[in-house]
Amino acid sequence: MTRFTLNPQRFFDPDPQIRTIAEELYLQVKDLPIISPHGHVDARIMAENTPFPDPTELILIPDHYIYRMLYSQGIALETLGILPVDGQAVKTDHRKIWRVFADHFYLFAGTPTGAWMNYELACVFEIAEKLNSANAMKIYDQIQDKLKTPEFLPRSLFNRFNMEVLTTTDGAADPLTYHRKIKESGWKGRVIPSFRPDAVINIAAAGWKTELQKLEKTIGKNIESFKDFIMALEQRRSFFKSMGATSTDQGVFSPYTHKLEMNEAESLFKRALQGAASEDDGAAFTAHMLMEMARMSTEDSLVMQIHPGSWRNHNQYIYRRFGTDKGCDIPVQTEYTRNLYELLNAYGNDFRLTLIVFTLDESTYSRELAPLAGHYPAMKLGPAWWFHDSIAGMTRFRERVTETAGIYNTVGFTDDTRAFLSIPARHDLSRRIDANFLARLVARHIIDHDDADRMIKDLTYNLVKKNYKL
Amino acid sequence: MTRFTLNPQRFFDPDPQIRTIAEELYLQVKDLPIISPHGHVDARIMAENTPFPDPTELILIPDHYIYRMLYSQGIALETLGILPVDGQAVKTDHRKIWRVFADHFYLFAGTPTGAWMNYELACVFEIAEKLNSANAMKIYDQIQDKLKTPEFLPRSLFNRFNMEVLTTTDGAADPLTYHRKIKESGWKGRVIPSFRPDAVINIAAAGWKTELQKLEKTIGKNIESFKDFIMALEQRRSFFKSMGATSTDQGVFSPYTHKLEMNEAESLFKRALQGAASEDDGAAFTAHMLMEMARMSTEDSLVMQIHPGSWRNHNQYIYRRFGTDKGCDIPVQTEYTRNLYELLNAYGNDFRLTLIVFTLDESTYSRELAPLAGHYPAMKLGPAWWFHDSIAGMTRFRERVTETAGIYNTVGFTDDTRAFLSIPARHDLSRRIDANFLARLVARHIIDHDDADRMIKDLTYNLVKKNYKL
Amino acid sequence: MTRFTLNPQRFFDPDPQIRTIAEELYLQVKDLPIISPHGHVDARIMAENTPFPDPTELILIPDHYIYRMLYSQGIALETLGILPVDGQAVKTDHRKIWRVFADHFYLFAGTPTGAWMNYELACVFEIAEKLNSANAMKIYDQIQDKLKTPEFLPRSLFNRFNMEVLTTTDGAADPLTYHRKIKESGWKGRVIPSFRPDAVINIAAAGWKTELQKLEKTIGKNIESFKDFIMALEQRRSFFKSMGATSTDQGVFSPYTHKLEMNEAESLFKRALQGAASEDDGAAFTAHMLMEMARMSTEDSLVMQIHPGSWRNHNQYIYRRFGTDKGCDIPVQTEYTRNLYELLNAYGNDFRLTLIVFTLDESTYSRELAPLAGHYPAMKLGPAWWFHDSIAGMTRFRERVTETAGIYNTVGFTDDTRAFLSIPARHDLSRRIDANFLARLVARHIIDHDDADRMIKDLTYNLVKKNYKL
Repeated sequence: MTRFTLNPQRFFDPDPQIRTIAEELYLQVKDLPIISPHGHVDARIMAENTPFPDPTELILIPDHYIYRMLYSQGIALETLGILPVDGQAVKTDHRKIWRVFADHFYLFAGTPTGAWMNYELACVFEIAEKLNSANAMKIYDQIQDKLKTPEFLPRSLFNRFNMEVLTTTDGAADPLTYHRKIKESGWKGRVIPSFRPDAVINIAAAGWKTELQKLEKTIGKNIESFKDFIMALEQRRSFFKSMGATSTDQGVFSPYTHKLEMNEAESLFKRALQGAASEDDGAAFTAHMLMEMARMSTEDSLVMQIHPGSWRNHNQYIYRRFGTDKGCDIPVQTEYTRNLYELLNAYGNDFRLTLIVFTLDESTYSRELAPLAGHYPAMKLGPAWWFHDSIAGMTRFRERVTETAGIYNTVGFTDDTRAFLSIPARHDLSRRIDANFLARLVARHIIDHDDADRMIKDLTYNLVKKNYKL
Repeated sequence: MTRFTLNPQRFFDPDPQIRTIAEELYLQVKDLPIISPHGHVDARIMAENTPFPDPTELILIPDHYIYRMLYSQGIALETLGILPVDGQAVKTDHRKIWRVFADHFYLFAGTPTGAWMNYELACVFEIAEKLNSANAMKIYDQIQDKLKTPEFLPRSLFNRFNMEVLTTTDGAADPLTYHRKIKESGWKGRVIPSFRPDAVINIAAAGWKTELQKLEKTIGKNIESFKDFIMALEQRRSFFKSMGATSTDQGVFSPYTHKLEMNEAESLFKRALQGAASEDDGAAFTAHMLMEMARMSTEDSLVMQIHPGSWRNHNQYIYRRFGTDKGCDIPVQTEYTRNLYELLNAYGNDFRLTLIVFTLDESTYSRELAPLAGHYPAMKLGPAWWFHDSIAGMTRFRERVTETAGIYNTVGFTDDTRAFLSIPARHDLSRRIDANFLARLVARHIIDHDDADRMIKDLTYNLVKKNYKL
Repeated sequence: MTRFTLNPQRFFDPDPQIRTIAEELYLQVKDLPIISPHGHVDARIMAENTPFPDPTELILIPDHYIYRMLYSQGIALETLGILPVDGQAVKTDHRKIWRVFADHFYLFAGTPTGAWMNYELACVFEIAEKLNSANAMKIYDQIQDKLKTPEFLPRSLFNRFNMEVLTTTDGAADPLTYHRKIKESGWKGRVIPSFRPDAVINIAAAGWKTELQKLEKTIGKNIESFKDFIMALEQRRSFFKSMGATSTDQGVFSPYTHKLEMNEAESLFKRALQGAASEDDGAAFTAHMLMEMARMSTEDSLVMQIHPGSWRNHNQYIYRRFGTDKGCDIPVQTEYTRNLYELLNAYGNDFRLTLIVFTLDESTYSRELAPLAGHYPAMKLGPAWWFHDSIAGMTRFRERVTETAGIYNTVGFTDDTRAFLSIPARHDLSRRIDANFLARLVARHIIDHDDADRMIKDLTYNLVKKNYKL
């Protein structure tokens, strides 16, 4: 991929020593394959391999990073092509939406979305100009033209992006139809599922019963007890594994872990089946299910991920009108030392478990997470996540974690994106920031060049492969 | 203002690229007018326009940043000219106090107070030496001489500081006599009030009843119900607006927001009138009043500010002896995601509201505040506040907020000072740090020069003007 | 000490201006005596002055920083020579353990342990190579040979390290036999105790009664009431003082302080004597004992230290098998503004008290600790502690504390180590980071060269001497 407008040394410190070393390190890894161990791209895209419809549909509409910022400045989501959940048809003009985006692209100056978008334009679409109001429609047309070509079909891009693995995130009841189609198509691209049973675990949620019914339908059995439920999950894990999965994931409000007695779990579950589970019941059940999922991982060796600390759908107006994942999930303070106590005491010394913990609460990096991961053999730290998946965010992660946990209790980079086009942009940015972080250490004689040469490859490729068992 | 001892490139990074860019950016804004949208200068000073009495009275005694540091090192407040509340006359020698300050000026090395003081001496008083024990009294005399000249009258300094707006902070019962006098004087300086009803909202405070009586006297009506109270506030807001106010402000211990039913609010208020309001009543009432103030803002368009998280008068000995605002207010951890939930769900999508939120808890910048402001159209972030209004503090603010919220969900700089002389020093420092922050981004090719040229002007002038509706 | 492999400018920023200034500052203090006001070296080592047995026994086995990292990567503690508490003999080969360490030395790249180890090898043992698998046994032998020489006897190293004071940490019941032996030996090295009564204060701990009996034995009296207990502590403090102690220390889970009525304290203590103290009783008693210890300090002038916020023995498997201090103490969030309220209101204005507060929760540096220490005359801040005693950790401490509290409300460096050999490495690193911190301020014209020259000496030597009354 040639680059027109992007400086080849971008994101490196201006100090000549650091910049030179950072570039040397980056060049060692910039062309390594991309391993994406956690994300939200739809497998259907790769299964169907049909052309992306247009720039707005491809780039803007799936990306809540983009429209939440536009919304914060007073631009209604309706005008940005976001469909209300009532299905009421909204007439939208994708060219007009692109123009609104271009008019407001200055809002993203200094944000990762801005950096990724510049990469997508320059490196994926080879567009030589910075997006602005004046060139917006010309650029739209240039992208549109490219999207019609075979080079821009999803699988072509997958190959061009040099992707070794693309991991999706899939519900417990998901039949993984598209993953199967990909396998059956004979295409060599490795697109694997990850098992995320949140919807059937969250017994206090309004739609839980419906989700459970989906699970029943998928497994072809009724779930009438907690024991049935556990067996269903075990069966689904096994199926996911057979479809290539190497990991599970849980998005929880709190990482609180606590094992219930079997009869307590049964009666909680019964209450849920009767539609009578309270918020407290939900929290207790989730705490117990984290213990159960860890146990299962020691048995079937699926890597366990926990993504805690997001208050989902904080803006209820947006949630009711547009549904989930619309840019209004807001982090809350999160505690790990107390909350993970039970899980780590039960399984933290078990070499069969790999537990990868994420956070949206940066104050826990040096206080809780690095000390925990720097001690328990089972625990590893996921990279800077979501709001912190950014130049300064990734830098803070490394600076606050490395001195206590080293780099070998971390697991490389995760793009965690719904925006397929942004994957190479995100990995490229991550590689640059890791290179810059190591270059700073070399320039200060904290590590030497040999260390850095090894570490940059581990950070980019080896650690993710090893820890996600890929 | 000529500068003798201050390096023109001070506070910029030493890296030649960054320093050059930072200076270019700074020079574009250094002479822009000062807009001060929030502070604590007494309007009387501008109304009366009489000479400042002496350096100690002008510079030291109003500034608790200065004497809290001296106190921390064992210098009693009595000896620094701070008057006990019992009014008992304390014989103080202002020349001696200045000497004590000079003897201990080394304590302020590396603090913003040190930087501001150096600016005041060099740029306001054109004193060519760094303050120390040896030159203390000579400098005192030099300042004293200047203070007698017309150039150092308050309004002359206001003009020389190139102030476009100076905002004061005033209680709900305040008749704004001095603001009126300024208007009537024909002087063109724009000195406007801001509506801060804390004293009449805090029903659990000892002096609440007295404060309410002041309000009754000001409006000439008895306040016998919550409904009366709300009408009184609305009336006062209207009056403040007529006197030029564009904003309100609330200093609250917690930013907890929760709407009460009308009858609950009424009975709470009754309890307060009977002198029976508990601490919990006070917290509930404040939570409700934040909702009410937001509602009023949607109606009268006054910008709403919240300054939470300060434990006032932590040192009860100092409080009892010397009163409030004596340097012993200590921050506490503060939560926003949960606490602002109700307010933001009620008014956060309302384009008529501008809610500017401050914090003393830096851990919330990237975890809560930037995600909230990066989503809700009504919410904006106030700048680094109080203890964090400093070189490293402002830098942390920008570094942790910008990647999620951009700069366009922030509102420029606030000096928030009681020390009139420090206003240009504080704005100059802020402009330098913003310039340096942007220069770092340019030097790393995160933004380009065009971005930075626009952003420095927005950070210095346009954002504050727009968001405070000035 | 000549240096072979270490860059003389290591840990300084690469920016030429900063690096030059940092080196100038560092060179002014690099040879100043080491004052170690708090640590965990065993006085017996200095009393007996016998040769250290071998490199593994000297360097690896006492250092839980090292083996927790190895354990986090799946290396069992048994194989690292850590003795189980059941005393069951484990056959260990110290040469083999050293080899395992060398094989995994890459894990420590970018950690302070890595930096300290490189210093120990290069500067203490004058070994010219970086440790790796290939040279591991050669280096082992080189060290072993040196340890047999008189130059490597403990007292010789003490002198060579240029130690002015070495402070140990000792239980209330400790007869300080080895401190006495040192005194009686006529050797001039100043090795002083510090009074740490945690074991007899923690009434809720399983072994409390045993600890109390040790105290009774030491003082030769029964302790049958709280009053007896207080008198016993006062007596021990007096004895410690006679043995050279200038400080006390308390490791508490929470810094909560609260004075009980005398009868409450008595009944709590009675419950404890009956073996019936609950966790809540323990917390209440500790809160009261912090008040008592502060009171005693105002009377006997011993400096009071508080080290809060560590969840001891988080990994119960490791604790049960290997005992305390095995690298599985994990920090928890810690609160100071509320918790220290009572103590600071009772004694914070008392110039006789010096209270040095530490934290493992970096979010409190700028939010709570710097504002408290920047106001209360009795309170000072201990340096970056434990996990944060590192290059980035110390830098964060200075950056977040200095602007509010200045440097004069901090107390210099504390090595806090069990690893005698790491003492010069740790002090050297600290001096470099402080020099670099000041150099950054000079290069940005925040302070000038004269300020920095004074401050580096204060940070290295004067502040610790003054605040610990040494």
